[in-house]
Amino acid sequence: MKKINISNKTPHVIRWVEDFKYKVWDRVVNCLTGMRPSGRLHLWHFKWALENWLLMQDTQNIKNNFLIADYQVLWDHLWDTERLRSAVVNMVIDWLSVWLDPKKSNFVVQSYVPEFAELFNLLTMFTPYSVATNNPTLKDEMKKIENRWEWENSSVSLWFINYPVSQVADIMLPKWEIVPVWEDQIPHIELARKIIKKVNTMYGTSFPLPMALISETPRLVGTDGNDKMSKSLWNTIYLTATLNEIKKWVNSMYTDSWKTSVSAPWNIENHVVFKYLDIFYSDKVHLEELKKRYIEGWENSVWDWELKKLLVKILDELISPIREKREYYKNNMDLVISSIEEGSENVRKIWQELLQELKEKMWIIWYWKS
Amino acid sequence: MKKINISNKTPHVIRWVEDFKYKVWDRVVNCLTGMRPSGRLHLWHFKWALENWLLMQDTQNIKNNFLIADYQVLWDHLWDTERLRSAVVNMVIDWLSVWLDPKKSNFVVQSYVPEFAELFNLLTMFTPYSVATNNPTLKDEMKKIENRWEWENSSVSLWFINYPVSQVADIMLPKWEIVPVWEDQIPHIELARKIIKKVNTMYGTSFPLPMALISETPRLVGTDGNDKMSKSLWNTIYLTATLNEIKKWVNSMYTDSWKTSVSAPWNIENHVVFKYLDIFYSDKVHLEELKKRYIEGWENSVWDWELKKLLVKILDELISPIREKREYYKNNMDLVISSIEEGSENVRKIWQELLQELKEKMWIIWYWKS
Repeated sequence: MKKINISNKTPHVIRWVEDFKYKVWDRVVNCLTGMRPSGRLHLWHFKWALENWLLMQDTQNIKNNFLIADYQVLWDHLWDTERLRSAVVNMVIDWLSVWLDPKKSNFVVQSYVPEFAELFNLLTMFTPYSVATNNPTLKDEMKKIENRWEWENSSVSLWFINYPVSQVADIMLPKWEIVPVWEDQIPHIELARKIIKKVNTMYGTSFPLPMALISETPRLVGTDGNDKMSKSLWNTIYLTATLNEIKKWVNSMYTDSWKTSVSAPWNIENHVVFKYLDIFYSDKVHLEELKKRYIEGWENSVWDWELKKLLVKILDELISPIREKREYYKNNMDLVISSIEEGSENVRKIWQELLQELKEKMWIIWYWKS
Repeated sequence: MKKINISNKTPHVIRWVEDFKYKVWDRVVNCLTGMRPSGRLHLWHFKWALENWLLMQDTQNIKNNFLIADYQVLWDHLWDTERLRSAVVNMVIDWLSVWLDPKKSNFVVQSYVPEFAELFNLLTMFTPYSVATNNPTLKDEMKKIENRWEWENSSVSLWFINYPVSQVADIMLPKWEIVPVWEDQIPHIELARKIIKKVNTMYGTSFPLPMALISETPRLVGTDGNDKMSKSLWNTIYLTATLNEIKKWVNSMYTDSWKTSVSAPWNIENHVVFKYLDIFYSDKVHLEELKKRYIEGWENSVWDWELKKLLVKILDELISPIREKREYYKNNMDLVISSIEEGSENVRKIWQELLQELKEKMWIIWYWKS
């Protein structure tokens, strides 16, 4: 196995497949991933995130920290904060149900760690206003966000302008080095590196510069063929789906091919069922054979109902154990809560210690105890 | 004595002389005043702030809290944070030396209270970005601030954009109601009222809406007659001044009158010594007589050296006991430190309790303890 050496020369963007998978690091590195607790998880979360997390959980020399980014939901849900609590708990049940293991990784809730806010406040002092607002991802997101504020017919909240810096606070103090993100989050990682470099230079600290880990998981289309699987588009298969729900969604899947004339070679370019099989069916030899027969057509062909039946079987094999574990955890809520508490507490301890150290170097611990 | 009733109808700006002085409140109200620990205090601080604080300290039904706003200095002094510690201590010695009493009032350091940052983080969520940046005082201040950031040839820090909201955090949780400020700070108080009103409406809390208390103390000119007494203009008389230093500064004072022809009536409009006597000389009858004689001139006149001698005497009477007390506290640093610790601890306790309550109402205390 190839060893990866982390040094100052390590590029700040590494790619999942070629740089990372099947390799081990030459020392233990801290990895931060996380999710916003905004609703039930679906197949897309599983393929994009959770499956990689499972892989990372068992990768040697990686200490995983799964962040429940509740502040990132809170700012936009001030009117219904009571839903946040159950959203957090439900998301953690989903995590546990796909075999994420709180003994191996830390589950940590942002709002559990008050020191987070203290560091965030300090880091805003290190960030020029112009740099904060020129972040291209932030600009894009601001455009996308509809104004839901009634007060003063106003814009996004001030928190939103600060949130890339609040992410730097998330990463910096527990010394998290690898941060799996999407391409569009790379400006945030670059901001983090700039700020952390500045702190290190000024106070002689040695906080590591984080690296973005880019996943190459192909995007999973919705059951309607839409590019994005999303709750709001009603085209998702949840990790909580029953067999009947799986059947319902798979049967509704769009199979573009039948639109062309019967004599034409079948086109599978927009065939949603095949897109799902590409991702979820592990028997690639059989899949290729099915595609070949489907494209050739006529007496040797495969019918859509056969493909759909196969997909239902595969998805149910994937989801039914998750469903079962979900039931188990719903009946054992103490395990869920303690997984959150313990992970948050672990991370908080590291955080407190490092914040104290930083504040001492900055001389903002006075004569008195803090 | 007239009683002042505080209700929702109380205007949010009250004026020191007509609304406040010689009146008592119908219940105990919390008052926040404070200073940035940016250097030694001088006569202007005494007239503008400390003397009023002394009055408030002994006003019935006012609980005073004197904030040491170290974060407001820190953001602009990241390169020399070690000076902040001594700046805080020195400022508190000045406070103690003018008879501010830590048994009657709380001396509280911003950075001592980590809960401050937690509330600040939350409050940025309640503040529309446009409202934050349209604050007229903030805009003015931004223009005035020279860019001292080397990185990216950049602007003020992100912290600066947030600072009016961070002031709301200062005020809100300890339930401070009266905030003595300059006229230019009124937009900040208005922002505070808006945010606090919003929180109260959304979560059924009852944080009081703060009122600005406007002081009518006339501005004290510098020893050179410049409108502003300021360290950077070298025209200040510090509260630490020795008798010789007082003499030096008073003797250097500009006495405009001698510029006009001897036969003309003396003009005292720009006479710095008279300006100081106006403020510091309590025997107004004698002062009027001096002015009259000075203006009439000739054999009955008063010489500048006589006026200067009088001013030296008056200022030394004011400053020498302060100087003495200063020596005492410098030799009893434990008293200084404990005054800061105790005040900060008192306020922190209130703060923690109220933050816990707010977080519960916002549902960001989960099942677990915090």
